[in-house]
Parts: sequence; structure tokens; C-alpha cells
Amino acid sequence: MRALVLTGKNEPLILQEKSDLTPGEGEVIIRVHAAALNHRDVWIQKGQYAGLKYPITPGSDGSGVVVNDPTGTFTGKEVIVNPAIHWGGALSHQDPKDFRILGLPDDGTFAEFVKVPLQNIVERPAHLSFEEAAALPLAGVTAFRSVSTRARVQSGEKVLITGIGGGVALFALQYAIALGARVYVTSGSGEKIEKAIALGALGGANYRTDSWGQSLQQLAGSFDVIIDGAAGDGMDELLNLATPGGRVVFYGATRGNPSAVTARRIFWKQLNILGSTMGSPEDFHSMTAFVRQHTIHPVIDKIFPFAEGEAAMRRMDDAHQFGKIVIRVQ
Amino acid sequence: MRALVLTGKNEPLILQEKSDLTPGEGEVIIRVHAAALNHRDVWIQKGQYAGLKYPITPGSDGSGVVVNDPTGTFTGKEVIVNPAIHWGGALSHQDPKDFRILGLPDDGTFAEFVKVPLQNIVERPAHLSFEEAAALPLAGVTAFRSVSTRARVQSGEKVLITGIGGGVALFALQYAIALGARVYVTSGSGEKIEKAIALGALGGANYRTDSWGQSLQQLAGSFDVIIDGAAGDGMDELLNLATPGGRVVFYGATRGNPSAVTARRIFWKQLNILGSTMGSPEDFHSMTAFVRQHTIHPVIDKIFPFAEGEAAMRRMDDAHQFGKIVIRVQ
Repeated sequence: MRALVLTGKNEPLILQEKSDLTPGEGEVIIRVHAAALNHRDVWIQKGQYAGLKYPITPGSDGSGVVVNDPTGTFTGKEVIVNPAIHWGGALSHQDPKDFRILGLPDDGTFAEFVKVPLQNIVERPAHLSFEEAAALPLAGVTAFRSVSTRARVQSGEKVLITGIGGGVALFALQYAIALGARVYVTSGSGEKIEKAIALGALGGANYRTDSWGQSLQQLAGSFDVIIDGAAGDGMDELLNLATPGGRVVFYGATRGNPSAVTARRIFWKQLNILGSTMGSPEDFHSMTAFVRQHTIHPVIDKIFPFAEGEAAMRRMDDAHQFGKIVIRVQ
Repeated sequence: MRALVLTGKNEPLILQEKSDLTPGEGEVIIRVHAAALNHRDVWIQKGQYAGLKYPITPGSDGSGVVVNDPTGTFTGKEVIVNPAIHWGGALSHQDPKDFRILGLPDDGTFAEFVKVPLQNIVERPAHLSFEEAAALPLAGVTAFRSVSTRARVQSGEKVLITGIGGGVALFALQYAIALGARVYVTSGSGEKIEKAIALGALGGANYRTDSWGQSLQQLAGSFDVIIDGAAGDGMDELLNLATPGGRVVFYGATRGNPSAVTARRIFWKQLNILGSTMGSPEDFHSMTAFVRQHTIHPVIDKIFPFAEGEAAMRRMDDAHQFGKIVIRVQ
């Protein structure tokens, strides 16, 4: 079979011939139709991720057809892959020891075939193409856990979603709108804010301006819920923008650690600062049911052919995308 | 009537003759038997509190007898005062506009008589002396909201309570033990840790040592719940000590803002960082019911006579106390 491979740190993603896969106990083989990128793949390429190993076929997101299920039950089924492997038994958090995300250390979806645990396949939502279905898993479940399981967004609430354009942020926008919330966004690009408004956001502010916090206050007052994957120096302003009793969910820290946090805001405003990452199997199943119920279509930025995996990685690294970057495998 | 009065910033608390009180619409007058101090009173004396005004009779905590209730319903009742005035209609947070704490801007309990809204009196738990009852309200409700309403401590959980010796921390210790938790503490004093162990804590660490975090890890591993009123540079270590999916409640920030927060800990460990301050009327009633049910007696550090209010303030400012500092008014 052919697969896209990272052979070392800062090496390009190249197409290679690899040996065929054999399912182990409780595993199935999927013929991949489409895969999608996440920032994680680029960090692995750059050597900026825990537990690095090379060569590795990255890719956490994929859709396809089960071609080898030793139990016979799922062979021929069209599926998407839940990339959260060995979440563990708790709803509140992933297993600190055994949890891993498909695509490192296990070879991922940027290949003609991928091997995953049987419990990590979920039927493809019928309203989605293989490309759309491939775009859903990692970002879709991360957004769902943040918006629904953690923040418990309610109809009519004001929600701020930062960094719109990224996969998780866009799913969070779509889910929050589907839940009846009034949604605002931030981005470093005015064009992305306009695109978010076209998707149903009520307004936004450019975080590259000094007054982005004030702009949002003028637009919307304060926010019942804030969904952020950046942290960094914007974090304290987000605590300022949260309404008393509000929920601020952090699902990542792409901008690193904050240099200042005003502790008084946390206790005096009775804030709920909620960390979230990936999602439990229950989150994944609830998410796909929600996407079906609301016929949500993932926003796709661009679809690359299989041989152009490296170009897809550069597109992700440039951060100019609006939506998921997909690789059509076959 | 006589009252203890702060006449200006950094002035001592002095006993003065003041005019008698008249209840307004929906208010009652209480003859104060005992009052208790909170750090807030010392901050007001030092001019370090929002909305300062002098002269002021401080004091948020008090117990006594209703002597003038225009409705006639409560006259003669032995009561404690709920110092949270105009909490507002939400359980999740106090009213941002009208909420205030008894003792500033309204004259407080360090007086022979105090005037409070009718809904702020609660029957004195019968197992408590007037001095014990006076020690309960502010710290008691702050601890109850933190431990029960916010952190929802469960039987068998490991709980860390920082800064033991302070009023809120000691109530948190008593409540968490009553709930069946395994409780550990920190303090800047080995003697206070020993006293906490005598009250039922399983162990503790001195936060003045560099290795306090490691010591706690060796003692207990990690903590399901952490209750802290200090924030400051210990905050990041508390996030490190929290178990994945754990709850970290901040009810204050006596050590100011943290100079560093490791954002990754928040999302990867799926933490719940929960701000808490004071408590709703529901919290107050649940707290007094809980204190009755478990026959909890507040830990009292020292009882001062009415004329020695200033000595009581200095005792609070020294931070050598273990438990509540009480003033016996009559």
C-alpha cells in the first residue's frame, strides 16, 4: 500500500510504498477514502510534539470503508474514525497512561489503509461526502465536548469563539448556532470574520488590534460562554469579557502561557474555567448524532490530491485556511 | 448605642457613642451578642478595599437577638446574620450592581446594635454559643459554597485545603471531613499543620519550603479537589497537583496574581478552575442546615472584649490565628 510518511524532523511529507496491514486482536482495517489535517500533524513534522518517532504516517482524521474485520460484522461498512484511542473509563478525562491520538505513535490516516481498534469506527453520517466525513472527527469532537459537554451552551446565550477559521473554532460556531446561541468571533483576519458572519455569527473583532476586547464589549456586552484554543496573552482579556458566572473553555494553548492573569476576576466573577481536550467515546457518538440531526456540513477549506500531502501541510502551516484541509486518498 | 469605628485610613478601631438605629422598610434591628473578624475588616482599615468610606463601623459577622422587627414576626428571636446583602436572583453569581457585604458601605456588626434586611437573618443553630454562632456566617458560607456548591466534594475524594488557620480554610476542612473526604492542608506554620491534623486532616506541607508540592505528591499523589484563597505564585503548582478532571476552587487571591500559569495543564488535564465568593441565600441556608446536621463547632482562635476591638484587628493582621477571632459585645 502507499502512505504519506514523515521520515524525520522538518522533512517533507512524502508518498512511499509500505507493507500491507494485518488487523490484530480487536482491530479492523479501513480503506481510506479521505483524510483531514490537524495542527498536530504539522507540530509532529516540526518535531514539536511529545513522544515523537520517525518514520511516521501522520493523520488523525479519516473516512473510508472497512475491508478487514476479523469478526466479519463491519466489513463493507462506510465509516469515520474516532481518533481518540484508549480514552479510558472516565467521562471527565482521558486515561493519563494509555490514551493516545491516532497518527502518533500509531500510523495514521494519510495512507491507503489504516488500522484502528474496532470501537473507534463509527458509521459515516449519510448526509456527508467522504471528504466532509473525513473533516469531522478530531476537530468535530473537540468542539462538541467544549461547547456541549463542558460549556453546556444554552439557547439564547451569548457565545464568543476565538480564532475562527481553525477547524475546532468553525465546528464550535456551527454547533453553538445550532443550539440557538448568539455567536461572536475573533480572528486575525477581517476576511475570516466576514466569512464567519456569512455562516451565522453576529459579529467579530480582529485580535491583532489593541482594542479587540473593547470592540467586543461594544458589540455584545459580555459573554456567557467563551471557547478558546489559544490561551497566551489573550487569556486575561477573555476572563474580562466573560459575564459573572460565565464559562470559559480552553481546548488548547497555541499561543502558549499567559504572562498575566488577574486572579480577582476568577473568584469575584465566580467564573468557570474549563479545560477540554478531544472527547470521550460518548462525546463522539453524541457529536455524530448532533451533526446528523442538524445536518451540519463541515466547512472545507481545500481538498488536496493524495500525492500533494506536503502542499496540504504547508497550507495548514500558513494559517490562511478557513475550514478543514482535506486529502483525497482515493 | 456604642460601636467600634474606623475614623480614617490606618486609624485604630475605637469605641464611640453613636445614635440609635431605626429600621427602614424590610429591615430589623439586632442587639449584637458577638461579632467576628474577617480579613476584609483589616483591609478596610488599611484603605485596601473598593468603595471605602469613613467613618465606618466594620464587621460582617454577628449573632444576637432581634429587638425591633416592624412586622413583629421575629422580635426576640436569636439569630445569626447573613452578611451577603442583595445577592440577586442568580445562583451562579452575586448581582454585579447591588450586591454588598455587611460592614461597608453599611455599618456592620462591631456595635451594640446592627440593622440588616429581614431576609438576612437566620435562626441561630441551637448547638452553638453566641460566640460560635458569630464566627460562622462569612467564612462559613464562603467555605460551604467552595466545597459543596462549587467543588461538589464527594465521600472518599482527596481534598487539599491551602492556608489552614484562616477562617474559610478551617470551615472547608471541617465540611470536607464531614462529607467523608480525605483532607490534606498547607500552611506557612508547622504548628498550624499539626493543629489541622488534630482536627482530622491526614497530613500537610509547609508552603514556605521549596518542595511543598513534591511533599504533597509524596503524601497523597494528586488531589480531586483543591480549595485555595491565595492564588499568587502557588497557583500553577496547585494546577500541577490537581488530578485529571479535578476541580480547583479559588475563593480569593490574598497573594495576588500568578506570575506564571501553565496553560497546557488546564486543557490537557481537563481541569475545572472554579471561582467562588461568599454564597447565595440558598448556600447560606444549606450551610446552616449542614452545620446543624453534623454538629460542627467553628474553631475559635480568641475572644476579645468589646473595648479591645483594635487588639482583635492586630491579631487578624498578624496572621498568627488558628480559627475565628471573635469580639464579645455583650
